[in-house]
Amino acid sequence: MGKVYKVALLGFGTVGKGTYRSITVNAAEIKRRTGLDIEVSRILELKEEAINCGIAPKEIFTQDINDILNDPEIVAVAEIIGGKEPAATFMLQAMAAGKNVVTPNKALVAARYDEFKAAAEKYGVEFRYEAAVGGAIPVIETINRSLWANSFNQVQGIVNGTTNYILTKMDEENMSYEEALKQAQAKGFAEQDPTADVEGIDTANKLTILMAEAFGVYMPPTEFERVGITGVTKADLEAAAAKNCKIKLIANAERQADGTIKASVKPTEIPCDNPLAGVRNEFNAILLRCNMADDIFLEGRGAGQDPTGSAMASDLIAICVELAK
Amino acid sequence: MGKVYKVALLGFGTVGKGTYRSITVNAAEIKRRTGLDIEVSRILELKEEAINCGIAPKEIFTQDINDILNDPEIVAVAEIIGGKEPAATFMLQAMAAGKNVVTPNKALVAARYDEFKAAAEKYGVEFRYEAAVGGAIPVIETINRSLWANSFNQVQGIVNGTTNYILTKMDEENMSYEEALKQAQAKGFAEQDPTADVEGIDTANKLTILMAEAFGVYMPPTEFERVGITGVTKADLEAAAAKNCKIKLIANAERQADGTIKASVKPTEIPCDNPLAGVRNEFNAILLRCNMADDIFLEGRGAGQDPTGSAMASDLIAICVELAK
Repeated sequence: MGKVYKVALLGFGTVGKGTYRSITVNAAEIKRRTGLDIEVSRILELKEEAINCGIAPKEIFTQDINDILNDPEIVAVAEIIGGKEPAATFMLQAMAAGKNVVTPNKALVAARYDEFKAAAEKYGVEFRYEAAVGGAIPVIETINRSLWANSFNQVQGIVNGTTNYILTKMDEENMSYEEALKQAQAKGFAEQDPTADVEGIDTANKLTILMAEAFGVYMPPTEFERVGITGVTKADLEAAAAKNCKIKLIANAERQADGTIKASVKPTEIPCDNPLAGVRNEFNAILLRCNMADDIFLEGRGAGQDPTGSAMASDLIAICVELAK
Repeated sequence: MGKVYKVALLGFGTVGKGTYRSITVNAAEIKRRTGLDIEVSRILELKEEAINCGIAPKEIFTQDINDILNDPEIVAVAEIIGGKEPAATFMLQAMAAGKNVVTPNKALVAARYDEFKAAAEKYGVEFRYEAAVGGAIPVIETINRSLWANSFNQVQGIVNGTTNYILTKMDEENMSYEEALKQAQAKGFAEQDPTADVEGIDTANKLTILMAEAFGVYMPPTEFERVGITGVTKADLEAAAAKNCKIKLIANAERQADGTIKASVKPTEIPCDNPLAGVRNEFNAILLRCNMADDIFLEGRGAGQDPTGSAMASDLIAICVELAK
């Protein structure tokens, strides 16, 4: 039996479970593709309900972060606690302990991008966050690696499923904003306090990350125009339809003639021949306008246990593959 | 000045020019992303017209493959001659000389997949072919790496621009097959002898490659059902429309209950809520049905100088990045 690469999860909520499942359910497939055995050896979780859910064996749970930080066999830590603290402190502590770090925490990555990148460099570890933008869609990897022979002219995205669901229902089923929001909440696509989604805050966090990757420019989400969807009316949607357009909450960043990047998050009329116009309900999509490849369009699930978990797992695998070289 | 990674091109036709342009026009961006200086140091080309086209300096052209095979500074060779010979022999000779090999030659990769893979392993080099399927769309990298936390249930693709253009014109502009083919030929989307495209041979080659990557199963293009588009009529398109479907030439491979893979290339009615139905004209797209990420959809240009060249360049960059580690 060869070396087993051990990773730890901080938090065992929805995305934690999906990360665990992606690594365990697909262990044989991951081995076929990479030659590696990867194991979730520890999970930090306080809630009894999560510990007892039956997805992961109880004996790998701990309530003490030090069991993970001090375990020399653990090569990577996935932060899936959410929020600001203790998530940020745990990530920085894990890096200081020489562990590679993965997170889907878009708000934290967007707010403290330079700090986490600097810490990762200082401690010689990787800091990855594929799941932070577009859920299951491998947009970070596509920008940073698959399309690295390109320079990007523009990045346009629908990166918030809640608002896209609401706009789709308003457009296709003639619902009011309030009715559509209520249905989104009933289906679990919107929080009880939907502010971060409907005001475009979540989308702005993701745009900050997309811009940093595509253009190498860090622009905090507070430094560009942000308009949510609460002001979108049926009349707006009808006016757009008359022009053969759909209104979508678009994260947009484009290179200006002077080389600077102009960014905004706002409801935007998208012509129906742009593939973003056809992205319906809770789906996410990103259109990358490249100087050589021309337009590359990616669509998929922006949220959900297994979809987001698979993006977390892809980062963990990438780290183990590098270590194995 | 640091090390310069030198690569060579065999052939300087359309894709050769695009490969050269991607590496030179985007040199600064490639350096920003990877830290590397990559240079096309040699080009094998016999045609005076290509040598004199002004895109690459004349002094790097050669008419002798040995100038490339015997140059110890060249780390990778891009085969862009097309056809069977001398392309295949040159690729195998380059591998034997310790050079990594990149090609967009789908017919050759599909016909002799195992042989090239074995040669690459024997000589300890990489064999990459991102540009062989979907042109600019990074589908090979997405299957092999970005989605490596997934097992694939199904791969469905529109991977031939010629046939998609013809079907789109028949559907949207009420053209006959013959009229649409003529227009495709006039626009440069179809060859004067369109057999390989319209009979689904090109699509079948690409499906063989997609299956090998997604399922780890090599099935030659002669071993599955293949039906072209010459029999598609306006009546078929109308009947599909009545069911809210589009007819597309679909490369399909799916995992059966017994674990085997069933593959086919044939005109297929695609429901309009499948994003493949919205892929128009000469565009290509691939839908990857994953066991964790769910559906991931990729769309872009399947052909053309710079789009295909950028996929070739991405493989060359990947090789240099590995060498630099």
